[in-house]
Amino acid sequence: MARFTVTYRIFAADQTEANARAEAIALEQTVEIPRDVVPAGFVEDVILGRVEEIGAEDEGRFRATISYSPESAGFELTQFFNVIFGNSSIQRGLRVIGIDPGKEMASRHPGPRFGIEGIRALCGRHEGGLIAPVLKPQGLGADDLAQIGYLSAKGGADIVKEDHGIMDQPMAPFRERVEKTAAAVARANTETGRHALYFPSLAGQADELEANIRFAKEAGADGLLIMPGLLGFGVVSRIARDAILNMPVMTHPSFLGPYVLSPETGFDHGVIFGTLQRLAGADISVFPNAGGRFGFTPEECAQIADACRDGAGPGKPMLPSPGGGMSVERAADMAAVYGEDVVYLLGGSLLRHGERIGEGIAAMRAALNQTQGAKT
Amino acid sequence: MARFTVTYRIFAADQTEANARAEAIALEQTVEIPRDVVPAGFVEDVILGRVEEIGAEDEGRFRATISYSPESAGFELTQFFNVIFGNSSIQRGLRVIGIDPGKEMASRHPGPRFGIEGIRALCGRHEGGLIAPVLKPQGLGADDLAQIGYLSAKGGADIVKEDHGIMDQPMAPFRERVEKTAAAVARANTETGRHALYFPSLAGQADELEANIRFAKEAGADGLLIMPGLLGFGVVSRIARDAILNMPVMTHPSFLGPYVLSPETGFDHGVIFGTLQRLAGADISVFPNAGGRFGFTPEECAQIADACRDGAGPGKPMLPSPGGGMSVERAADMAAVYGEDVVYLLGGSLLRHGERIGEGIAAMRAALNQTQGAKT
Repeated sequence: MARFTVTYRIFAADQTEANARAEAIALEQTVEIPRDVVPAGFVEDVILGRVEEIGAEDEGRFRATISYSPESAGFELTQFFNVIFGNSSIQRGLRVIGIDPGKEMASRHPGPRFGIEGIRALCGRHEGGLIAPVLKPQGLGADDLAQIGYLSAKGGADIVKEDHGIMDQPMAPFRERVEKTAAAVARANTETGRHALYFPSLAGQADELEANIRFAKEAGADGLLIMPGLLGFGVVSRIARDAILNMPVMTHPSFLGPYVLSPETGFDHGVIFGTLQRLAGADISVFPNAGGRFGFTPEECAQIADACRDGAGPGKPMLPSPGGGMSVERAADMAAVYGEDVVYLLGGSLLRHGERIGEGIAAMRAALNQTQGAKT
Repeated sequence: MARFTVTYRIFAADQTEANARAEAIALEQTVEIPRDVVPAGFVEDVILGRVEEIGAEDEGRFRATISYSPESAGFELTQFFNVIFGNSSIQRGLRVIGIDPGKEMASRHPGPRFGIEGIRALCGRHEGGLIAPVLKPQGLGADDLAQIGYLSAKGGADIVKEDHGIMDQPMAPFRERVEKTAAAVARANTETGRHALYFPSLAGQADELEANIRFAKEAGADGLLIMPGLLGFGVVSRIARDAILNMPVMTHPSFLGPYVLSPETGFDHGVIFGTLQRLAGADISVFPNAGGRFGFTPEECAQIADACRDGAGPGKPMLPSPGGGMSVERAADMAAVYGEDVVYLLGGSLLRHGERIGEGIAAMRAALNQTQGAKT
């Protein structure tokens, strides 16, 4: 059975220490017992991680590729991620810089159900960047949020997305909000003849999530916004693999910052906002745009966009979705950086337009079309 | 309605920058729109975060306490944590160093159902440290794991805990394993007249978790081991708040390392392995012991133990559970460091005893009793 591999950057004084660290990771991520008590046979031969390659990258930095058995990861995404970087996430000077699922894990976790082509087909935007206004602020009632959704869809939004901070609060409870906003977006779609998609933010206690997913589907939501840092990547996977539900997922980076902020721990930006999202089955990955209020560099954002759209997988290419810093004035620059296959989030600044929010979206659409020569 | 507060350490050049950062966090964590478009009335007066206190801690380090409304956090643990450190987790130079839930959030998230006294009552260990051998390695079949469980319970274990890497793999599927191990531990308990508790590692796809929780309960499991870093803290909360299920939760730190490893992001050790666990409702919090193969310092471990057991809350005091480095030789030292209210994990080194694993546990019990003068 084809093993999967994880490539780690190990910060170590010398090659000897790096070798010892790599062997320790191979144990830690699988059997988690001292080497001398690993049972001979299946456990030692198959389950135990195997250091496949190790070499120096730079002074004090080494690169080790360790292979693991699909038997170790089983069929749950959670356990797959647990093998990739569970306990070893607690080690100092260790970062995941690459994951190759191999054939077997790729078949167990086939990735995005829709991907770039699928999302474009759903909303009928076959060329050019997609525009996704965000329904907020938290504190508005369900009717007000639905009205912003209506105006956004009317104005030419491709995806109407709820803010990740809008969950199941008393002022706009999940079910009331989803029902009203889905109806409002549907009304706008009837009027425009287009098909803006509505992605509510999935809310609820852990034991309410299943019912809330079904509720959203039945109410007419087209997809779901999920925070894997808080709800777990397993929820993304559960939705992505459900052919009957058949709903796309947009993921939000809330709570995930510490995985990228220190270069000596966590994941490379492209791995956590690209590779892991695709393995989980997300179709659109939100991340903080360079130049906004978070400190991602243009290179880090490019790495994310590349990892989202890499034709080599895992699974179908997905849409990167940079949040923050988008404006009519910057549309040309942003299009030059991200190209066409991208979802632009339009946040709080849209609210400056008040009832004329649709005009803000239309202006953005025009600016993007001019840049890219795409037709509406 | 009593607001809750979060205290952040802000790394900033000067007081002016720190003030601006604090005001930005208050916006980011709630309305997430520019200050000038925050709607007057309820949103501005109640929902918007409020900087309550800010001052210099040290050169380049400031401490800001921001209050938020329970209306902003709603009733889901997930959204509570999202307000505490969702988007702001992605900012550089920002760490959560304290959380005060206040009366309202404390009533929405009452914390551990069992706590220290409750766990002691369940297993009948009224004095002295608790001993928890870990069932592993991954790769053994359900019968072998159940047999280790039997021998452990027979030898005097207080809690028989599964390794966090044992989930739903084909070699020992969750349901088969739980059924066999629960029966094995029950048989040992009948023979000893004691009551060792069995905590399986909760496995399954996201939409199988509910059924698996109920299955474990019906099969005779006494509690559940959960990895909040992978499954989400909401799953802990869902179990803790269920009076009919009435099962304690032990949490495992897998995947959570990046939240503590850099001092300029994430959470203080005591906050993530103590305060957040108590808010979620965990009864026992596993963390890597100082001196083991992870790099936590004695001070960081003491901070965790203090946060777990602080009589002031949130909720009932819970049991800290340091993993790694425990041995008969170190029992006296460990007891001196952690005192009596602690669960000692006994990991892979126990396997050196083979069929005599019970003797290893009995030796540990004797060493702890000698140290603390407790009676078996």
